[in-house]
Amino acid sequence: MKEKLYIIKIGGNVINDAEELQQFLSDFAAIESKKILIHGGGKIATTVGNQLGIKSKYIEGRRITDDDTIDVVTMVYAGLVNKKIIAALQALQCNALGLCGADANILPAVKRPVKEIDYGWAGDIILNACDVQPWQQFLKQGLTPVVSPLTHDGKGHLLNTNADTIAATVSALLAPQYDLCLIYCFEKDGILENVGDENSVISQMNREDYQRLLLEQKLFSGILPKLDNAFMALEHQVEKVVIGNSQKLNQLISGNEGTIIT
Amino acid sequence: MKEKLYIIKIGGNVINDAEELQQFLSDFAAIESKKILIHGGGKIATTVGNQLGIKSKYIEGRRITDDDTIDVVTMVYAGLVNKKIIAALQALQCNALGLCGADANILPAVKRPVKEIDYGWAGDIILNACDVQPWQQFLKQGLTPVVSPLTHDGKGHLLNTNADTIAATVSALLAPQYDLCLIYCFEKDGILENVGDENSVISQMNREDYQRLLLEQKLFSGILPKLDNAFMALEHQVEKVVIGNSQKLNQLISGNEGTIIT
Repeated sequence: MKEKLYIIKIGGNVINDAEELQQFLSDFAAIESKKILIHGGGKIATTVGNQLGIKSKYIEGRRITDDDTIDVVTMVYAGLVNKKIIAALQALQCNALGLCGADANILPAVKRPVKEIDYGWAGDIILNACDVQPWQQFLKQGLTPVVSPLTHDGKGHLLNTNADTIAATVSALLAPQYDLCLIYCFEKDGILENVGDENSVISQMNREDYQRLLLEQKLFSGILPKLDNAFMALEHQVEKVVIGNSQKLNQLISGNEGTIIT
Repeated sequence: MKEKLYIIKIGGNVINDAEELQQFLSDFAAIESKKILIHGGGKIATTVGNQLGIKSKYIEGRRITDDDTIDVVTMVYAGLVNKKIIAALQALQCNALGLCGADANILPAVKRPVKEIDYGWAGDIILNACDVQPWQQFLKQGLTPVVSPLTHDGKGHLLNTNADTIAATVSALLAPQYDLCLIYCFEKDGILENVGDENSVISQMNREDYQRLLLEQKLFSGILPKLDNAFMALEHQVEKVVIGNSQKLNQLISGNEGTIIT
Protein backbone atom coordinates (compact mmCIF):
# COMPACT_ATOMS: atom_id res chain seq x y z
CA MET A 1 0.00 0.00 0.00
CA LYS A 2 1.23 3.44 -0.91
CA GLU A 3 2.03 5.92 1.85
CA LYS A 4 -0.26 8.92 2.26
CA LEU A 5 1.09 12.28 1.08
CA TYR A 6 -0.64 15.66 1.23
CA ILE A 7 0.45 18.42 -1.10
CA ILE A 8 -1.11 21.66 0.08
CA LYS A 9 -0.98 24.99 -1.69
CA ILE A 10 -1.63 28.34 0.00
CA GLY A 11 -1.92 31.68 -1.72
CA GLY A 12 -1.41 35.34 -1.09
CA ASN A 13 -4.42 36.02 1.13
CA VAL A 14 -3.48 33.74 4.01
CA ILE A 15 0.20 34.72 3.72
CA ASN A 16 -0.69 38.41 4.07
CA ASP A 17 -2.54 37.88 7.35
CA ALA A 18 -0.17 36.87 10.20
CA GLU A 19 -2.94 35.48 12.38
CA GLU A 20 -4.58 33.42 9.62
CA LEU A 21 -1.17 32.14 8.52
CA GLN A 22 -0.33 31.03 12.06
CA GLN A 23 -3.69 29.22 12.33
CA PHE A 24 -3.11 27.50 8.99
CA LEU A 25 0.47 26.49 9.84
CA SER A 26 -0.67 25.11 13.17
CA ASP A 27 -3.22 22.87 11.40
CA PHE A 28 -0.65 21.98 8.72
CA ALA A 29 2.02 21.02 11.28
CA ALA A 30 -0.50 18.75 13.03
CA ILE A 31 -0.99 16.56 9.94
CA GLU A 32 0.62 13.26 10.86
CA SER A 33 1.12 11.98 7.32
CA LYS A 34 3.91 13.11 5.05
CA LYS A 35 3.25 16.53 3.58
CA ILE A 36 4.56 19.23 1.26
CA LEU A 37 3.58 22.90 1.36
CA ILE A 38 3.64 25.08 -1.77
CA HIS A 39 3.17 28.80 -1.24
CA GLY A 40 2.65 31.93 -3.30
CA GLY A 41 3.27 35.39 -1.94
CA GLY A 42 2.40 37.75 -4.78
CA LYS A 43 0.93 40.57 -2.74
CA ILE A 44 3.97 41.02 -0.51
CA ALA A 45 6.15 41.02 -3.64
CA THR A 46 4.00 43.82 -5.05
CA THR A 47 4.31 45.83 -1.81
CA VAL A 48 8.08 45.37 -1.57
CA GLY A 49 8.44 46.08 -5.29
CA ASN A 50 6.50 49.32 -4.91
CA GLN A 51 8.67 50.34 -1.94
CA LEU A 52 11.73 49.72 -4.13
CA GLY A 53 10.19 51.74 -6.94
CA ILE A 54 9.63 48.64 -9.11
CA LYS A 55 6.08 48.48 -10.41
CA SER A 56 4.53 45.08 -11.06
CA LYS A 57 3.24 44.69 -14.59
CA TYR A 58 0.53 42.17 -15.46
CA ILE A 59 -0.89 40.86 -18.70
CA GLU A 60 -3.96 38.62 -18.45
CA GLY A 61 -3.43 38.15 -14.71
CA ARG A 62 0.16 37.00 -15.11
CA ARG A 63 3.05 38.98 -13.73
CA ILE A 64 5.59 40.16 -16.32
CA THR A 65 8.91 39.27 -14.78
CA ASP A 66 11.59 41.74 -15.90
CA ASP A 67 15.14 41.82 -14.46
CA ASP A 68 14.17 43.88 -11.40
CA THR A 69 11.02 41.86 -10.78
CA ILE A 70 12.77 38.48 -10.70
CA ASP A 71 15.06 39.91 -8.00
CA VAL A 72 12.09 41.17 -5.99
CA VAL A 73 10.17 37.89 -6.18
CA THR A 74 13.34 35.95 -5.35
CA MET A 75 13.80 38.06 -2.21
CA VAL A 76 10.18 37.87 -1.19
CA TYR A 77 9.15 34.33 -2.19
CA ALA A 78 12.35 32.37 -1.42
CA GLY A 79 13.55 34.71 1.35
CA LEU A 80 10.98 36.55 3.41
CA VAL A 81 7.89 34.37 2.94
CA ASN A 82 9.58 30.97 2.75
CA LYS A 83 11.92 31.39 5.71
CA LYS A 84 9.28 32.94 7.98
CA ILE A 85 7.10 29.89 7.29
CA ILE A 86 10.06 27.58 8.00
CA ALA A 87 10.82 29.27 11.34
CA ALA A 88 7.12 29.15 12.30
CA LEU A 89 6.85 25.45 11.40
CA GLN A 90 10.00 24.60 13.35
CA ALA A 91 8.40 26.25 16.39
CA LEU A 92 5.42 23.92 15.81
CA GLN A 93 7.75 20.86 15.83
CA CYS A 94 7.41 20.40 12.08
CA ASN A 95 10.88 19.83 10.61
CA ALA A 96 10.44 22.00 7.54
CA LEU A 97 12.89 22.46 4.68
CA GLY A 98 12.51 25.53 2.49
CA LEU A 99 13.16 25.02 -1.20
CA CYS A 100 12.90 26.86 -4.47
CA GLY A 101 12.96 25.03 -7.76
CA ALA A 102 16.72 25.48 -8.19
CA ASP A 103 17.50 23.80 -4.84
CA ALA A 104 18.54 20.20 -5.43
CA ASN A 105 17.34 20.85 -9.01
CA ILE A 106 13.80 19.92 -7.96
CA LEU A 107 12.03 22.02 -10.61
CA PRO A 108 13.93 22.30 -13.90
CA ALA A 109 12.14 24.65 -16.27
CA VAL A 110 12.43 26.52 -19.50
CA LYS A 111 12.04 30.27 -19.94
CA ARG A 112 8.66 30.81 -21.54
CA PRO A 113 9.17 31.40 -25.28
CA VAL A 114 8.18 34.86 -26.49
CA LYS A 115 5.09 34.73 -28.73
CA GLU A 116 2.57 37.60 -28.64
CA ILE A 117 3.59 38.39 -25.07
CA ASP A 118 7.06 38.47 -23.54
CA TYR A 119 6.56 37.24 -19.99
CA GLY A 120 10.20 37.87 -19.14
CA TRP A 121 11.74 35.52 -16.55
CA ALA A 122 8.71 33.24 -16.40
CA GLY A 123 9.34 29.51 -16.25
CA ASP A 124 7.45 26.50 -17.60
CA ILE A 125 8.39 23.34 -15.71
CA ILE A 126 9.75 20.44 -17.75
CA LEU A 127 7.83 17.61 -16.08
CA ASN A 128 9.80 14.80 -17.70
CA ALA A 129 13.09 16.37 -16.52
CA CYS A 130 11.89 16.39 -12.89
CA ASP A 131 13.43 13.76 -10.63
CA VAL A 132 11.33 12.09 -7.95
CA GLN A 133 14.46 11.15 -5.93
CA PRO A 134 15.23 14.37 -4.01
CA TRP A 135 11.58 14.65 -2.96
CA GLN A 136 11.51 11.05 -1.76
CA GLN A 137 14.79 11.44 0.11
CA PHE A 138 13.68 14.60 1.90
CA LEU A 139 10.39 12.96 2.89
CA LYS A 140 12.21 9.79 4.06
CA GLN A 141 14.48 11.97 6.22
CA GLY A 142 11.35 13.18 8.01
CA LEU A 143 11.59 16.61 6.41
CA THR A 144 8.59 18.63 5.22
CA PRO A 145 9.43 20.46 1.99
CA VAL A 146 8.06 24.01 1.77
CA VAL A 147 8.34 25.25 -1.80
CA SER A 148 8.45 28.86 -3.05
CA PRO A 149 7.20 29.48 -6.60
CA LEU A 150 10.53 29.80 -8.39
CA THR A 151 12.06 27.43 -10.91
CA HIS A 152 15.33 27.63 -12.88
CA ASP A 153 16.52 27.16 -16.44
CA GLY A 154 19.72 25.22 -15.73
CA LYS A 155 21.68 28.10 -17.26
CA GLY A 156 21.93 30.11 -14.06
CA HIS A 157 18.62 31.97 -14.19
CA LEU A 158 15.80 31.80 -11.69
CA LEU A 159 12.32 31.82 -13.20
CA ASN A 160 8.95 32.86 -11.84
CA THR A 161 6.39 30.05 -11.97
CA ASN A 162 2.78 30.00 -10.83
CA ALA A 163 2.41 28.25 -7.46
CA ASP A 164 -0.82 26.48 -8.48
CA THR A 165 1.02 24.95 -11.42
CA ILE A 166 3.92 23.88 -9.19
CA ALA A 167 1.51 22.19 -6.79
CA ALA A 168 -0.15 20.25 -9.64
CA THR A 169 3.18 19.35 -11.25
CA VAL A 170 4.77 18.09 -8.02
CA SER A 171 1.57 16.10 -7.39
CA ALA A 172 1.75 14.57 -10.86
CA LEU A 173 5.42 13.71 -10.29
CA LEU A 174 4.87 12.02 -6.92
CA ALA A 175 1.49 10.37 -7.58
CA PRO A 176 2.99 7.05 -8.76
CA GLN A 177 4.87 6.75 -5.42
CA TYR A 178 2.30 8.00 -2.90
CA ASP A 179 -1.41 7.91 -2.15
CA LEU A 180 -1.60 11.56 -2.96
CA CYS A 181 -4.13 14.21 -1.99
CA LEU A 182 -3.69 17.71 -3.48
CA ILE A 183 -5.40 20.53 -1.59
CA TYR A 184 -5.71 24.04 -3.00
CA CYS A 185 -6.40 26.48 -0.16
CA PHE A 186 -7.76 29.94 -0.80
CA GLU A 187 -10.03 32.46 0.90
CA LYS A 188 -13.35 30.88 -0.08
CA ASP A 189 -15.02 27.70 1.18
CA GLY A 190 -14.79 26.03 -2.21
CA ILE A 191 -15.82 26.51 -5.82
CA LEU A 192 -18.99 28.59 -5.82
CA GLU A 193 -21.83 27.68 -8.19
CA ASN A 194 -22.75 31.36 -8.05
CA VAL A 195 -19.81 33.70 -7.54
CA GLY A 196 -21.95 36.15 -5.56
CA ASP A 197 -23.23 33.56 -3.08
CA GLU A 198 -20.72 32.29 -0.49
CA ASN A 199 -23.14 29.50 0.43
CA SER A 200 -23.25 28.04 -3.07
CA VAL A 201 -20.20 25.77 -2.58
CA ILE A 202 -20.17 22.87 -5.02
CA SER A 203 -19.28 19.77 -3.02
CA GLN A 204 -18.13 17.68 -6.00
CA MET A 205 -17.14 18.66 -9.50
CA ASN A 206 -16.08 16.56 -12.46
CA ARG A 207 -14.85 17.61 -15.86
CA GLU A 208 -18.38 17.70 -17.33
CA ASP A 209 -19.62 19.94 -14.51
CA TYR A 210 -16.65 22.18 -15.19
CA GLN A 211 -17.40 22.44 -18.92
CA ARG A 212 -21.06 23.20 -18.19
CA LEU A 213 -20.20 25.93 -15.64
CA LEU A 214 -17.66 27.39 -18.06
CA LEU A 215 -20.34 27.66 -20.75
CA GLU A 216 -22.73 29.26 -18.26
CA GLN A 217 -19.93 31.73 -17.36
CA LYS A 218 -20.79 31.45 -13.68
CA LEU A 219 -17.30 30.72 -12.35
CA PHE A 220 -14.96 33.37 -10.96
CA SER A 221 -12.20 33.70 -13.57
CA GLY A 222 -9.44 33.53 -10.93
CA ILE A 223 -10.40 29.94 -10.17
CA LEU A 224 -9.97 28.67 -13.75
CA PRO A 225 -6.18 28.05 -13.64
CA LYS A 226 -6.62 26.18 -10.33
CA LEU A 227 -9.26 23.96 -11.93
CA ASP A 228 -7.18 23.34 -15.05
CA ASN A 229 -4.30 22.35 -12.79
CA ALA A 230 -6.58 20.16 -10.67
CA PHE A 231 -7.75 18.17 -13.70
CA MET A 232 -4.18 17.91 -14.97
CA ALA A 233 -3.16 16.39 -11.61
CA LEU A 234 -6.05 13.88 -11.72
CA GLU A 235 -4.92 12.76 -15.17
CA HIS A 236 -1.55 11.94 -13.59
CA GLN A 237 -2.82 9.41 -11.02
CA VAL A 238 -3.38 11.94 -8.21
CA GLU A 239 -6.03 10.29 -6.03
CA LYS A 240 -7.91 13.34 -4.85
CA VAL A 241 -7.96 17.11 -5.37
CA VAL A 242 -9.79 19.38 -2.92
CA ILE A 243 -10.28 23.15 -3.18
CA GLY A 244 -11.34 25.09 -0.10
CA ASN A 245 -10.69 27.52 2.73
CA SER A 246 -7.21 27.72 4.27
CA GLN A 247 -8.84 28.26 7.69
CA LYS A 248 -10.61 24.89 7.48
CA LEU A 249 -7.71 22.60 6.63
CA ASN A 250 -8.81 19.81 8.98
CA GLN A 251 -12.27 19.72 7.41
CA LEU A 252 -10.80 19.75 3.91
CA ILE A 253 -8.71 16.73 4.84
CA SER A 254 -11.62 14.88 6.42
CA GLY A 255 -13.79 15.65 3.37
CA ASN A 256 -16.41 17.67 5.24
CA GLU A 257 -15.68 20.98 3.51
CA GLY A 258 -14.52 22.31 0.18
CA THR A 259 -15.02 21.14 -3.39
CA ILE A 260 -13.74 17.71 -4.30
CA ILE A 261 -12.59 17.54 -7.90
CA THR A 262 -13.09 14.12 -9.47
CA MET B 1 39.74 6.85 6.74
CA LYS B 2 37.52 9.87 6.98
CA GLU B 3 36.11 11.41 3.83
CA LYS B 4 37.40 14.83 2.76
CA LEU B 5 35.07 17.79 3.32
CA TYR B 6 35.70 21.43 2.43
CA ILE B 7 33.76 24.14 4.22
CA ILE B 8 34.30 27.39 2.38
CA LYS B 9 33.12 30.82 3.47
CA ILE B 10 32.78 33.81 1.15
CA GLY B 11 31.98 37.35 2.19
CA GLY B 12 30.41 40.51 0.88
CA ASN B 13 33.16 41.59 -1.53
CA VAL B 14 33.04 38.64 -3.88
CA ILE B 15 29.23 38.51 -3.67
CA ASN B 16 28.97 42.14 -4.79
CA ASP B 17 31.00 41.55 -7.95
CA ALA B 18 29.13 39.37 -10.47
CA GLU B 19 32.26 38.47 -12.42
CA GLU B 20 34.36 37.57 -9.37
CA LEU B 21 31.47 35.56 -7.94
CA GLN B 22 31.10 33.58 -11.17
CA GLN B 23 34.85 32.85 -11.18
CA PHE B 24 34.72 31.72 -7.56
CA LEU B 25 31.63 29.54 -8.09
CA SER B 26 33.24 27.95 -11.12
CA ASP B 27 36.29 26.96 -9.01
CA PHE B 28 34.04 25.88 -6.15
CA ALA B 29 31.86 23.69 -8.39
CA ALA B 30 34.99 21.98 -9.73
CA ILE B 31 36.02 20.68 -6.28
CA GLU B 32 35.50 16.95 -6.51
CA SER B 33 35.33 16.29 -2.76
CA LYS B 34 32.25 16.94 -0.67
CA LYS B 35 31.80 20.62 0.08
CA ILE B 36 29.67 23.19 1.87
CA LEU B 37 29.49 26.90 1.03
CA ILE B 38 28.68 29.51 3.67
CA HIS B 39 28.02 33.04 2.42
CA GLY B 40 27.50 36.50 3.82
CA GLY B 41 25.89 39.30 1.86
CA GLY B 42 25.95 42.32 4.14
CA LYS B 43 26.55 44.99 1.54
CA ILE B 44 23.58 44.06 -0.65
CA ALA B 45 21.41 44.02 2.49
CA THR B 46 22.56 47.56 3.26
CA THR B 47 21.78 48.70 -0.30
CA VAL B 48 18.33 47.10 -0.33
CA GLY B 49 17.65 48.38 3.20
CA ASN B 50 18.53 51.91 2.13
CA GLN B 51 16.24 51.62 -0.91
CA LEU B 52 13.45 50.55 1.44
CA GLY B 53 14.22 53.44 3.79
CA ILE B 54 15.64 51.14 6.47
CA LYS B 55 19.02 52.33 7.68
CA SER B 56 21.51 49.74 8.93
CA LYS B 57 22.77 50.46 12.44
CA TYR B 58 26.07 49.10 13.68
CA ILE B 59 27.71 48.96 17.09
CA GLU B 60 31.32 47.77 17.21
CA GLY B 61 31.06 46.47 13.65
CA ARG B 62 28.01 44.35 14.40
CA ARG B 63 24.72 45.05 12.73
CA ILE B 64 21.85 45.86 15.07
CA THR B 65 18.99 43.73 13.84
CA ASP B 66 15.66 45.42 14.53
CA ASP B 67 12.28 44.16 13.22
CA ASP B 68 12.69 45.77 9.79
CA THR B 69 16.32 44.73 9.47
CA ILE B 70 15.68 41.02 10.10
CA ASP B 71 13.12 41.15 7.25
CA VAL B 72 15.65 42.81 4.93
CA VAL B 73 18.45 40.36 5.70
CA THR B 74 16.05 37.43 5.35
CA MET B 75 15.08 38.67 1.89
CA VAL B 76 18.61 39.38 0.80
CA TYR B 77 20.63 36.57 2.44
CA ALA B 78 18.19 33.65 2.17
CA GLY B 79 16.44 34.93 -0.96
CA LEU B 80 18.39 37.01 -3.42
CA VAL B 81 21.98 36.00 -2.63
CA ASN B 82 21.39 32.37 -1.73
CA LYS B 83 19.11 31.48 -4.65
CA LYS B 84 21.23 33.26 -7.26
CA ILE B 85 24.20 31.21 -6.05
CA ILE B 86 22.11 28.03 -6.20
CA ALA B 87 20.98 28.73 -9.78
CA ALA B 88 24.56 29.54 -10.80
CA LEU B 89 25.92 26.34 -9.21
CA GLN B 90 23.21 24.22 -10.86
CA ALA B 91 24.35 25.65 -14.22
CA LEU B 92 27.87 24.47 -13.28
CA GLN B 93 26.58 20.92 -12.65
CA CYS B 94 26.92 21.32 -8.88
CA ASN B 95 23.74 20.03 -7.23
CA ALA B 96 23.42 22.80 -4.64
CA LEU B 97 20.83 23.03 -1.85
CA GLY B 98 20.21 26.45 -0.32
CA LEU B 99 19.64 26.48 3.41
CA CYS B 100 19.23 28.94 6.24
CA GLY B 101 19.63 27.84 9.84
CA ALA B 102 15.91 27.21 10.28
CA ASP B 103 15.77 24.76 7.36
CA ALA B 104 15.85 21.19 8.67
CA ASN B 105 16.68 22.86 12.01
CA ILE B 106 20.36 22.85 11.05
CA LEU B 107 21.34 25.86 13.19
CA PRO B 108 19.34 26.19 16.42
CA ALA B 109 20.28 29.37 18.24
CA VAL B 110 19.32 31.67 21.06
CA LYS B 111 18.57 35.37 20.73
CA ARG B 112 21.58 37.21 22.11
CA PRO B 113 20.82 38.32 25.68
CA VAL B 114 20.69 42.10 26.16
CA LYS B 115 23.61 43.33 28.29
CA GLU B 116 25.16 46.74 27.56
CA ILE B 117 24.05 46.49 23.92
CA ASP B 118 20.75 45.22 22.52
CA TYR B 119 21.71 43.55 19.26
CA GLY B 120 18.05 42.86 18.44
CA TRP B 121 17.37 39.71 16.40
CA ALA B 122 20.95 38.45 16.58
CA GLY B 123 21.48 34.74 17.21
CA ASP B 124 24.15 32.78 19.04
CA ILE B 125 24.25 29.18 17.81
CA ILE B 126 23.77 26.46 20.42
CA LEU B 127 26.51 24.07 19.28
CA ASN B 128 25.44 21.18 21.47
CA ALA B 129 21.88 21.42 20.12
CA CYS B 130 23.11 21.10 16.51
CA ASP B 131 22.49 17.75 14.86
CA VAL B 132 25.08 16.28 12.50
CA GLN B 133 22.45 14.08 10.81
CA PRO B 134 20.80 16.47 8.33
CA TRP B 135 24.24 17.62 7.12
CA GLN B 136 25.41 14.05 6.64
CA GLN B 137 22.22 13.07 4.84
CA PHE B 138 22.37 16.01 2.42
CA LEU B 139 26.04 15.27 1.68
CA LYS B 140 25.31 11.54 1.21
CA GLN B 141 22.56 12.47 -1.26
CA GLY B 142 25.22 14.20 -3.33
CA LEU B 143 23.91 17.65 -2.46
CA THR B 144 26.13 20.66 -1.78
CA PRO B 145 24.67 22.74 1.07
CA VAL B 146 24.89 26.51 0.55
CA VAL B 147 24.14 28.27 3.81
CA SER B 148 22.92 31.84 4.33
CA PRO B 149 23.81 33.49 7.66
CA LEU B 150 20.49 33.14 9.45
CA THR B 151 19.66 30.95 12.44
CA HIS B 152 16.43 30.56 14.43
CA ASP B 153 15.34 30.46 18.05
CA GLY B 154 12.89 27.54 17.84
CA LYS B 155 10.11 29.91 18.83
CA GLY B 156 9.37 31.10 15.32
CA HIS B 157 11.95 33.87 14.97
CA LEU B 158 14.75 34.06 12.47
CA LEU B 159 18.04 35.42 13.83
CA ASN B 160 20.97 37.15 12.18
CA THR B 161 24.26 35.31 12.77
CA ASN B 162 27.76 36.13 11.56
CA ALA B 163 28.73 33.96 8.57
CA ASP B 164 32.32 33.46 9.85
CA THR B 165 30.93 32.06 13.07
CA ILE B 166 28.55 29.78 11.18
CA ALA B 167 31.46 28.43 9.10
CA ALA B 168 33.52 27.68 12.22
CA THR B 169 30.57 26.16 14.06
CA VAL B 170 29.53 23.88 11.21
CA SER B 171 33.20 22.86 10.86
CA ALA B 172 33.39 22.05 14.58
CA LEU B 173 30.16 20.04 14.31
CA LEU B 174 31.29 17.97 11.31
CA ALA B 175 35.00 17.58 12.16
CA PRO B 176 34.54 14.27 14.03
CA GLN B 177 32.92 12.76 10.87
CA TYR B 178 35.07 14.22 8.08
CA ASP B 179 38.66 15.10 7.24
CA LEU B 180 37.73 18.72 7.32
CA CYS B 181 39.37 21.77 5.78
CA LEU B 182 37.85 25.18 6.56
CA ILE B 183 38.68 27.97 4.11
CA TYR B 184 37.88 31.61 4.79
CA CYS B 185 37.88 33.55 1.52
CA PHE B 186 38.13 37.29 1.44
CA GLU B 187 39.59 40.02 -0.80
CA LYS B 188 43.22 39.73 0.38
CA ASP B 189 45.77 37.03 -0.29
CA GLY B 190 45.98 36.05 3.38
CA ILE B 191 46.70 37.53 6.80
CA LEU B 192 49.09 40.41 6.30
CA GLU B 193 51.99 40.87 8.70
CA ASN B 194 51.79 44.55 7.81
CA VAL B 195 48.27 45.75 6.97
CA GLY B 196 49.65 48.32 4.50
CA ASP B 197 51.71 45.79 2.53
CA GLU B 198 49.78 43.35 0.31
CA ASN B 199 52.95 41.29 -0.13
CA SER B 200 53.41 40.61 3.58
CA VAL B 201 51.19 37.52 3.62
CA ILE B 202 51.97 35.26 6.59
CA SER B 203 52.10 31.71 5.24
CA GLN B 204 51.56 30.00 8.60
CA MET B 205 50.22 31.31 11.87
CA ASN B 206 49.77 29.60 15.23
CA ARG B 207 48.18 30.89 18.39
CA GLU B 208 51.46 32.32 19.70
CA ASP B 209 52.05 34.24 16.48
CA TYR B 210 48.53 35.56 16.79
CA GLN B 211 49.06 36.74 20.37
CA ARG B 212 52.33 38.44 19.42
CA LEU B 213 50.77 40.21 16.40
CA LEU B 214 47.84 41.28 18.57
CA LEU B 215 50.22 42.87 21.06
CA GLU B 216 52.10 44.59 18.26
CA GLN B 217 48.70 45.88 16.97
CA LYS B 218 49.71 45.14 13.40
CA LEU B 219 46.65 43.17 12.34
CA PHE B 220 43.66 44.66 10.55
CA SER B 221 40.88 44.64 13.13
CA GLY B 222 38.35 43.17 10.67
CA ILE B 223 40.37 39.95 10.57
CA LEU B 224 40.24 39.30 14.33
CA PRO B 225 36.81 37.59 14.48
CA LYS B 226 37.89 35.33 11.56
CA LEU B 227 41.03 34.35 13.47
CA ASP B 228 39.15 33.75 16.72
CA ASN B 229 36.76 31.52 14.76
CA ALA B 230 39.66 29.75 13.05
CA PHE B 231 41.30 28.85 16.39
CA MET B 232 37.92 27.76 17.79
CA ALA B 233 37.52 25.40 14.83
CA LEU B 234 41.02 23.94 15.32
CA GLU B 235 40.18 23.23 18.97
CA HIS B 236 37.26 21.13 17.67
CA GLN B 237 39.32 18.66 15.61
CA VAL B 238 39.16 20.64 12.35
CA GLU B 239 42.26 19.46 10.45
CA LYS B 240 43.15 22.64 8.64
CA VAL B 241 42.05 26.29 8.43
CA VAL B 242 43.17 28.47 5.51
CA ILE B 243 42.52 32.19 5.02
CA GLY B 244 43.02 33.72 1.58
CA ASN B 245 41.76 35.25 -1.65
CA SER B 246 38.44 34.10 -3.09
CA GLN B 247 39.92 34.43 -6.58
CA LYS B 248 42.62 31.84 -5.77
CA LEU B 249 40.51 28.99 -4.43
CA ASN B 250 42.47 26.25 -6.21
CA GLN B 251 45.75 27.53 -4.75
CA LEU B 252 44.22 27.79 -1.27
CA ILE B 253 43.16 24.17 -1.54
CA SER B 254 46.55 23.01 -2.81
CA GLY B 255 48.31 24.97 -0.05
CA ASN B 256 50.24 27.29 -2.37
CA GLU B 257 48.50 30.47 -1.31
CA GLY B 258 46.91 32.02 1.76
CA THR B 259 47.63 31.80 5.47
CA ILE B 260 47.42 28.37 7.06
CA ILE B 261 46.26 28.58 10.66
CA THR B 262 47.72 25.84 12.84
